[in-house]
Amino acid sequence: MTAPQEHPLPDRPGRRHLLRAGTLGVGALGIGAAGAGLDRALRDPARTEAGSSRPDPAPYGGTAVPFHGAHQAGVETPAPAAATLLALDLRENVDRDGVLRMLRLLTDDAARLTQGEPALADTEPELAAEPASLTVTAGFGPGLMARADRPAPEWLAPLPAFGIDQLEEQWCDGDLLLQIAADDPLTVSHAARMLLKDSRAFATIRWSQTGFRRSPGVVRPGSTLRNLFGQLDGTANPAPGSEHFSTVVWRDEGPFAGGTSMVVRRIRMDLDGWDEADRGAREAATGTRLDSGAPLSGGDETTPADFEKVSANGFPVIGEFSHMRRARGVDDGEHQEIYRRPYNYEHAPSPGSGQLSEAGQVFISFQADPVAQFLPIQRRLDELDLLNQWTTPIGSAVFAIPPGCAEGEFLGQSVLE
Amino acid sequence: MTAPQEHPLPDRPGRRHLLRAGTLGVGALGIGAAGAGLDRALRDPARTEAGSSRPDPAPYGGTAVPFHGAHQAGVETPAPAAATLLALDLRENVDRDGVLRMLRLLTDDAARLTQGEPALADTEPELAAEPASLTVTAGFGPGLMARADRPAPEWLAPLPAFGIDQLEEQWCDGDLLLQIAADDPLTVSHAARMLLKDSRAFATIRWSQTGFRRSPGVVRPGSTLRNLFGQLDGTANPAPGSEHFSTVVWRDEGPFAGGTSMVVRRIRMDLDGWDEADRGAREAATGTRLDSGAPLSGGDETTPADFEKVSANGFPVIGEFSHMRRARGVDDGEHQEIYRRPYNYEHAPSPGSGQLSEAGQVFISFQADPVAQFLPIQRRLDELDLLNQWTTPIGSAVFAIPPGCAEGEFLGQSVLE
Repeated sequence: MTAPQEHPLPDRPGRRHLLRAGTLGVGALGIGAAGAGLDRALRDPARTEAGSSRPDPAPYGGTAVPFHGAHQAGVETPAPAAATLLALDLRENVDRDGVLRMLRLLTDDAARLTQGEPALADTEPELAAEPASLTVTAGFGPGLMARADRPAPEWLAPLPAFGIDQLEEQWCDGDLLLQIAADDPLTVSHAARMLLKDSRAFATIRWSQTGFRRSPGVVRPGSTLRNLFGQLDGTANPAPGSEHFSTVVWRDEGPFAGGTSMVVRRIRMDLDGWDEADRGAREAATGTRLDSGAPLSGGDETTPADFEKVSANGFPVIGEFSHMRRARGVDDGEHQEIYRRPYNYEHAPSPGSGQLSEAGQVFISFQADPVAQFLPIQRRLDELDLLNQWTTPIGSAVFAIPPGCAEGEFLGQSVLE
Repeated sequence: MTAPQEHPLPDRPGRRHLLRAGTLGVGALGIGAAGAGLDRALRDPARTEAGSSRPDPAPYGGTAVPFHGAHQAGVETPAPAAATLLALDLRENVDRDGVLRMLRLLTDDAARLTQGEPALADTEPELAAEPASLTVTAGFGPGLMARADRPAPEWLAPLPAFGIDQLEEQWCDGDLLLQIAADDPLTVSHAARMLLKDSRAFATIRWSQTGFRRSPGVVRPGSTLRNLFGQLDGTANPAPGSEHFSTVVWRDEGPFAGGTSMVVRRIRMDLDGWDEADRGAREAATGTRLDSGAPLSGGDETTPADFEKVSANGFPVIGEFSHMRRARGVDDGEHQEIYRRPYNYEHAPSPGSGQLSEAGQVFISFQADPVAQFLPIQRRLDELDLLNQWTTPIGSAVFAIPPGCAEGEFLGQSVLE
């Protein structure tokens, strides 16, 4: 491995303004102001010919995202191509000490695997060789906090039931969440398997969800993802690396300071029904143009929507019940914004379903406070959102994401000790 | 779109020595000799700054593999990162004319989508914008040949039952096979959906299998794939672009001249059991070193195996029952070689299975004659192969791959007219 060096690819948002492990501490969490300028360098063990003009034939395999730091990786860092989310339930005999031992073990595995090194008990060490921007992010459910004899934050609880929900138990809740994501599905598969093996003595699988975004190098870094409806999805996100992002996402006090909350919703998308709707009906439902992602009031993807604009007939150009209008934050002093980092899912249809495929989105959002930020948005969408015709939440879970850890610590140590 | 130009990335095997559509014809099929030197250029609509020294931030999205040519793409062309295989069954009321109409429609879709253009009836045209080396390969089962009133080749039939098989009907056979593969899973998803929609009036889904290889840019182009066991898998493959490849894969006479046969086997891999075996037992089973892929008799991945070599105790170094020894071709005048182009699969375990995941390989092989080439190898593996302890074929299908088509023709036209 070579020494850490700047990554030679164009900057991606989210790889900037992250802190090195050495600066860890509550005082360092005011990233936007005090922390700006401190870049978290990406290590790339494959790059030994720095300065060579020949294009690297494998530019994405060797990229390693630092594991240690003030925040966990996998939130503000760019969302890589492939992800598996594992929700585990603690075995009945696992006590506080067992929880801590499990976290110590999984942290050690994650710290190695993300740097392209095999885990200690790795039986397929060759599959660890390409980290491909692997991140492992841990989240705690109320059950883990209780087992560890620590009070769960008030906001760490299942979301209230919504009218649009058709939740299936198999996609809900969990004691421990592991978000394993990399630019390569084989890397994700191996890391997920390794972590599962080492958690086996402590926990069982509650659910597992696998999703995809664009492969590395297919669209420009930082491009907004198109979902399976073809919509640009995530335009309104706060920009990773900005002070605004920190305000929206990172908690600034309490045991989870430097951490955040994670909402995972499995949203089934009725692609067949969507196909039958014409473009006008679709754009009316979203409030945006499908091609450019621009609001129907005009401009481009990043132009602010003009909700006051009316057509010649006096009707609002962005409909009252459009997704865009219903989803926006309301200015009542609270910052009703969230950071979405979703993955698409698709698999073979259930036999006899008549569908072309089972498909949808593993909706993932991070926000400092799910009750103050996520809930009001979701309530408005639940009441009325034209997009609900084609989308059905079938899974739901909330996790508390502890802050990052320094070398020698384990994930969640500051929260649980 | 810019005019066709050479792809600026390093050469990948299989992108050479393919013929331009203009040279199509039976006489052009002797690729190794007469056709050598004719490169099939790759079009890359995203590359407008040729000669620029700035690295392309999205080098893989715009790459288009030519659709028309002497052979179908998706066989000798490099295997991209993601693939969906769809096996369709013709509806009862579809006659010969219906088969031809369906193929004409699907060919038109494939010709457009592979070049980064939406299909005619595309309702999500934005999702067609990044072809990412998309290929669509069509294969015919015996049912399609019968419906089209044309005799099926003798070799086009289900494989005989093997002792190791535990076939499940849901993964076997089919009238029409579509192999849809690209370096991006969203591209594959959209193309598969578009083709399925246009086939709906003619056919129903029999099975669908989705698999993955490494993402683009994660390992060097042309690297041998590691499967989920961590084995380098495909070392013994004939090299795409070589005369040897043509001999092994392309048929040189009959209606399917310029085409080939495709065997698809769904092979469940017992990753949990494999994990429990120690490295010595695994390497004895494969006959190769797990790290380098070298035969146990020494050398590196490409060193020919020395099956005569014995240990100090007089035992063969490469065991009699090792996969490598059982799988190799026997020199009896026939060329018992095949070209493997597999994909990994993995999905969430069935509830209560106790497994960490359902995983395995979508085994895909191409060979001029499945009876003379694939069958003897498979028979030897069936009789005795230590690797069988951890692998179970659960699906099986054979398809006849028609040759490529020229512009204005449809896939299989020369075979069915």
